[in-house]
Amino acid sequence: MDAVIISIGTELTTGQQIDTNSAWLAAELTELGADVVGFQTVGDEAGRIGVAVRRALDAADLVVLTGGLGPTPDDLTREGLAQAIGVPLEESPEALRQIRSFFERVQRPMPGSNVAQAMLPRGCELLSNPRGTAPGIHYCRDETHLYALPGVPTEMKVMFSQSIAPLLMALPGDQHPREIRLRCFGLSEARVGELLADLMGRDRNPLIGITASDAVLTIRVFGRGRDATETDELIRADACEIRNRLGEAIFGEGDDTLEGVVAAVLTTRGETIATAESCTGGLLAKRLTDMPGSSAYFIQGCITYSNWAKKQLLGVPEELLVKHGAVSEQVAEAMAFGCRTKAGSDFALSVTGIAGPGGGQPPDKPVGLVWCGMAHAGGVQAKRALLGEHLDRAEIRDRACKTVLNLLRLHLPRGKPG
Amino acid sequence: MDAVIISIGTELTTGQQIDTNSAWLAAELTELGADVVGFQTVGDEAGRIGVAVRRALDAADLVVLTGGLGPTPDDLTREGLAQAIGVPLEESPEALRQIRSFFERVQRPMPGSNVAQAMLPRGCELLSNPRGTAPGIHYCRDETHLYALPGVPTEMKVMFSQSIAPLLMALPGDQHPREIRLRCFGLSEARVGELLADLMGRDRNPLIGITASDAVLTIRVFGRGRDATETDELIRADACEIRNRLGEAIFGEGDDTLEGVVAAVLTTRGETIATAESCTGGLLAKRLTDMPGSSAYFIQGCITYSNWAKKQLLGVPEELLVKHGAVSEQVAEAMAFGCRTKAGSDFALSVTGIAGPGGGQPPDKPVGLVWCGMAHAGGVQAKRALLGEHLDRAEIRDRACKTVLNLLRLHLPRGKPG
Repeated sequence: MDAVIISIGTELTTGQQIDTNSAWLAAELTELGADVVGFQTVGDEAGRIGVAVRRALDAADLVVLTGGLGPTPDDLTREGLAQAIGVPLEESPEALRQIRSFFERVQRPMPGSNVAQAMLPRGCELLSNPRGTAPGIHYCRDETHLYALPGVPTEMKVMFSQSIAPLLMALPGDQHPREIRLRCFGLSEARVGELLADLMGRDRNPLIGITASDAVLTIRVFGRGRDATETDELIRADACEIRNRLGEAIFGEGDDTLEGVVAAVLTTRGETIATAESCTGGLLAKRLTDMPGSSAYFIQGCITYSNWAKKQLLGVPEELLVKHGAVSEQVAEAMAFGCRTKAGSDFALSVTGIAGPGGGQPPDKPVGLVWCGMAHAGGVQAKRALLGEHLDRAEIRDRACKTVLNLLRLHLPRGKPG
Repeated sequence: MDAVIISIGTELTTGQQIDTNSAWLAAELTELGADVVGFQTVGDEAGRIGVAVRRALDAADLVVLTGGLGPTPDDLTREGLAQAIGVPLEESPEALRQIRSFFERVQRPMPGSNVAQAMLPRGCELLSNPRGTAPGIHYCRDETHLYALPGVPTEMKVMFSQSIAPLLMALPGDQHPREIRLRCFGLSEARVGELLADLMGRDRNPLIGITASDAVLTIRVFGRGRDATETDELIRADACEIRNRLGEAIFGEGDDTLEGVVAAVLTTRGETIATAESCTGGLLAKRLTDMPGSSAYFIQGCITYSNWAKKQLLGVPEELLVKHGAVSEQVAEAMAFGCRTKAGSDFALSVTGIAGPGGGQPPDKPVGLVWCGMAHAGGVQAKRALLGEHLDRAEIRDRACKTVLNLLRLHLPRGKPG
């Protein structure tokens, strides 16, 4: 089944906003066995929307649209869709009832403009929106299905899961594609490409692909077998071989993150953590608390930007700051040690570095120099990372967090690949 | 000038990675006067890349490709481009020299696989990459220009700015499009749509559009005049009218963020801030330190997840926690007060709430309930936000940060629109 995803919004074609919906939909559709031929993005113009929809209906078995179903005059997906299929718009009493009921539920008055959201192209089916005011639209012609969903990600996702996914799962298929994604940190894309070169033929089954995103590599093992068992055997054999070749650089599968892996091990072991951050400014703590249930392992965090704060909140000795500077092995260790002592946690992580763009003192302390510290019952240790002047501030802060999380991951018994 | 952006990568069409490049390029191209007709995304298959490139060359005056220029066998943009224009690939000695020189500069050995990156379609021009190993490619046919850039955002951006932007700025145009974007927080999209309804005609010049993204509304005023002066007058008049109607809900222009506006005012006034976070787990401090130079105003931050940490790090009295609970007006105020006292800062912000999905105690303390506190020389104050159970954990944390930043923004003399 070939699928095309169309995103609608002038905020997209003028670059004001990044389209995250297409990627989410593509991942879901791929998982369900569809072959996503491509994405298209068009602005809020009924004519252009209509052309894109007509082309997609001719080219694919499944078309998923997102965006342009809002209540304001620049939301034109309803009009574009009606043009593409050659029917007028009509008010749907059921849609209007659902929109009114949404406003009653959230105890707000319904603005008059929301009535526009109850207009559907004639002959189309309404898709209920449990999270917002914009109903979705389902259109079917011969064997081709089109679904129009709102652009608000939370609404789009729940509607996809409730209305589209069940339908796709019921479709028969002659192939059973599946993929495993291995997650890798600490090796370059080129190095992994060399280590896996003999597995990366273009016509091979499984197909192996490598993607680098913010210093994390994802190694995709995408297989197609005659049934689920054959596919599973194919991809598992390759995944096992790749794990053997890349060793402890593999930290997880699927969408695993370094913080997620660390959090899972801490939770399982009933252990706790605290953080002390300078250049990352709270990003490390933010990542460790991204996951629900983080209060089970996360005790507290200190963001000590100034030397004064490092002394006051973490007890870093003045003489270390004077002798070695704030960005040094000694201060990273003292931050971690002080942080663990104050919090009474099993582990403490620290980061001190120069995120730039200013503040570098080459050659000894250039922008991108980061010292990561870790304190545990057995002592303290520090790791130096030279993150490179070609990275920007946000990238240096991101890599610094990953480096210190990886330090802890490799220390934890079950953070290693097994 | 009509432009089409093509993103290449199976990591995109399988939804593993979100395409941020197209949005960035679209914003730059729009700014430079191009009309971005749309984006396309295709996977790493030379055939599909070739087809997309041929279609785009027929439809647009400018085609910008990103991705698929890496060193591994699944990077096929070079092949797809060569197919589309019907020429073979040839090794470029200059490209190879630049790749070798990059590895010398970063003091790493050059993997053999990087040689593939020196292959260019015959007749194409090399674009230097100052930040990485993948050279870009420039192809010109009649009046149509195509540029292929690497998918790594930092590399793509610097190459666009150095190689493509200067060329576009030199092109003549019969129209002078320009836009102002106003940023708004605290009103719903539908409400703003009603307040601006008479300005939002589809054929109006300037064209007014509203986009909601994570509770921030962007109001686009896009005008086209015969010269820059006429365009400026058109869009400024509308922007002024919109500011009058929306009042203090307008917090900035362009890409302004609440934290950026707050940081700018604090920096100008030489004032300092400290943060005390519970449910946001470091996100507030992270945002306040996203900007270079944040050490001028940011003193320190505490992430006090447990009651114990609230008492130890912020001096929140035990009796308040027992009597009112951690998520309460009294504790939000005590956190802000204690934070400001310990840090000796001009301002302190606090957040305590229930980010979910667990931990809610309806009806009094449902998921999404957040208390924000602010302490300053004049005293303390708190604001309640009920962020709604339809939001997920990340959204609740995001909105909580925005709510407390907005509290401070409205308090600061120059954080208000002027």
